[in-house]
Amino acid sequence: MKKALFLLFLSAGMCWGQSPDAFQPASTNVPNAEFPRIDADSRIEFRIKAPDAQKVQVQVGTVPAIDMLKGADGVWTVTTPPIVPGFHYYYLNIDGVAVNDPATRAFYGVSKDSGGIEVPEKGVDFYLAKDVPHGEVREHWYRSSVTDTWRRVFIYTPPGYDKDVKMRYPVLYLQHGGGEDETGWIKQGHANFILDNLIAEGKAKPMLIVMSLGYAKRAGAPDTNLGGAPFGSPAAMKAMQALTQAFEDEMVAVIVPMIDAEYRTFADRDHRAMAGLSMGGMQTFQITLNHLDKFSYIGGFSGAGTGFVFGNNSFDQKTAFNGVFADAAAFNKKVHLLWLGVGTAEPERMHTGIVAFHEALVKAGVDVKFYESPGTAHEWQTWRRDLNLFAPLLFQKDAK
Amino acid sequence: MKKALFLLFLSAGMCWGQSPDAFQPASTNVPNAEFPRIDADSRIEFRIKAPDAQKVQVQVGTVPAIDMLKGADGVWTVTTPPIVPGFHYYYLNIDGVAVNDPATRAFYGVSKDSGGIEVPEKGVDFYLAKDVPHGEVREHWYRSSVTDTWRRVFIYTPPGYDKDVKMRYPVLYLQHGGGEDETGWIKQGHANFILDNLIAEGKAKPMLIVMSLGYAKRAGAPDTNLGGAPFGSPAAMKAMQALTQAFEDEMVAVIVPMIDAEYRTFADRDHRAMAGLSMGGMQTFQITLNHLDKFSYIGGFSGAGTGFVFGNNSFDQKTAFNGVFADAAAFNKKVHLLWLGVGTAEPERMHTGIVAFHEALVKAGVDVKFYESPGTAHEWQTWRRDLNLFAPLLFQKDAK
Repeated sequence: MKKALFLLFLSAGMCWGQSPDAFQPASTNVPNAEFPRIDADSRIEFRIKAPDAQKVQVQVGTVPAIDMLKGADGVWTVTTPPIVPGFHYYYLNIDGVAVNDPATRAFYGVSKDSGGIEVPEKGVDFYLAKDVPHGEVREHWYRSSVTDTWRRVFIYTPPGYDKDVKMRYPVLYLQHGGGEDETGWIKQGHANFILDNLIAEGKAKPMLIVMSLGYAKRAGAPDTNLGGAPFGSPAAMKAMQALTQAFEDEMVAVIVPMIDAEYRTFADRDHRAMAGLSMGGMQTFQITLNHLDKFSYIGGFSGAGTGFVFGNNSFDQKTAFNGVFADAAAFNKKVHLLWLGVGTAEPERMHTGIVAFHEALVKAGVDVKFYESPGTAHEWQTWRRDLNLFAPLLFQKDAK
Repeated sequence: MKKALFLLFLSAGMCWGQSPDAFQPASTNVPNAEFPRIDADSRIEFRIKAPDAQKVQVQVGTVPAIDMLKGADGVWTVTTPPIVPGFHYYYLNIDGVAVNDPATRAFYGVSKDSGGIEVPEKGVDFYLAKDVPHGEVREHWYRSSVTDTWRRVFIYTPPGYDKDVKMRYPVLYLQHGGGEDETGWIKQGHANFILDNLIAEGKAKPMLIVMSLGYAKRAGAPDTNLGGAPFGSPAAMKAMQALTQAFEDEMVAVIVPMIDAEYRTFADRDHRAMAGLSMGGMQTFQITLNHLDKFSYIGGFSGAGTGFVFGNNSFDQKTAFNGVFADAAAFNKKVHLLWLGVGTAEPERMHTGIVAFHEALVKAGVDVKFYESPGTAHEWQTWRRDLNLFAPLLFQKDAK
């Protein structure tokens, strides 16, 4: 029926792609910006005035760069093919320089404040602000004894946190991906709205969410620049490991005790979860599996067992992660939830790596939940879906 | 001595402007970005790789655009003359398109996410994070009955707010300028660090600060686009008035009652202040002088009496602001603080307008504090200084 209507428009001489009524400004635009705009088929029309430019392209998410066309008025435009729903980083390439579209909001990703565009998913609103009680997100500065720098965490407090000042809450520590920062899960991920909605529907327990900067350099340590080494290369892995070890200290020795001291938490492993996306998923597995005395719920969203993602799909049950899976029955008893997620449209290496890790865990007798996000790539729509399915499984039992 | 050293460097054949040791990456850079960088004389060196561009300029704050020079490697560079300390929006102009420098963080201003650079002021640290107790900044979403949209306020809670849950606090409502939003006073202004430092030194009373989006369109009202009319034109004034009247309702009927209901405030005029910069200052004067039953401390930072700034320097004591100054003695008794501030390097019209407004108020017998920020323009360093001097005067008396 929809296809028939579409053809009808065409046969009536209207071009669907150029009908202004069919396009709506993206929710990620700056106020009053008409472009970029998106139609019902998730095609995006971009526009930029650049009379003196020689060549302008647009690069959206994982889609290859698309040439824009210059009009007589010096305005460059293009309408993309349908784009998969969700949040995508995007750039304009003006005479060879990748820059943000001035018409769009900036989101920290790809190691800088990048342009981003939200493509709505039809009929799906679990990550949008709804008319339900809303929690708050607190910006909290502290001086770290690990890094000897000022650092920032964001803390989601659920609706009612300030009302009943005797109530205590479990805590989910939730990490961003490589090139992103502690703002990602709110600005790109809408973690606050996802939890507001789940809590309002009674699907998730009220909880705190703590979002930290996932990079840490020990005070006095030499600079490591992860960005300088090709992704997945031995040099990048080594640099990531150094960062991750310092971040492990930051999380376990600084952040968790600070949160337990300054917020009304249940300060025990049964009420403590950690999850993360991509790099944050790898950090989650390293930190939680090294500290099962502190965490009992574990989530890897498109990132978990490092070796699998980077092409080394071997799994030695006795030695992997310092032997934590050697006694699967004991592990299953101790850990309340182990979750792996991945999008079906993620890069082949990432997808097969996580599928293989899941299969190896199942074969080893480890209880593990596995979720494949249909049609989504290594992008935020995958991780929003992960969180929406993961959070309801948290803190449902105080102990096994 | 410093000058002598400077000459010594020069006479030794070193070019101060090109010595890498003398330049430090700006604090507003994205992580690991070496450029832009700033030397001890507040000169800024910009750099961008754009091999295919024909012309690249940089435009910093109120300084006219400066041509950058292309090297053989396709990298464009320039070192500016000394730039006045403080926070400046800036742009690169690449073949005629104003874009953000990818190496710098984005800040909402000029009606979009704009690049910004922080030039340190020597020996001045009142707006930097120090080793003192820190308050938090809360992101708070609500559905407005005035606009029928989701809106956001940020609330600074002082150190200790969560500790003694019986303590109540006075509230400062603090507004951004035109083209900025509710993030400005924290991201550009560092209002949280300014208050943390003042409170730690015992110079300001612990208080809440509420920062709201200063644009509001009544549900169902036609769109007004302030940006479409020239600044200061009758059309722009009319559009601003429509926005301001809706915002007045939003502030008085929605935000203040919500804050008093959901936070531990003293909910009376003696414990309520409002201040704002530029457009926010004009809004402050309109709202507080229309509602002296609700506010008793008033601050206009580079924005206050509209007519003065826009060249109509007449002041009729009997009719100005609906006659609120007609009985100066009664006004002085009722209002605990009336504050005007302006930078000496602001545009002539702005500076003389506020100076004239101050003089008219003094002549009318109105008690008014006046502060001229030395050497600073219509920019954030002026308003940080305003807040640093204004906040200590707040809530020092419960009633006159």
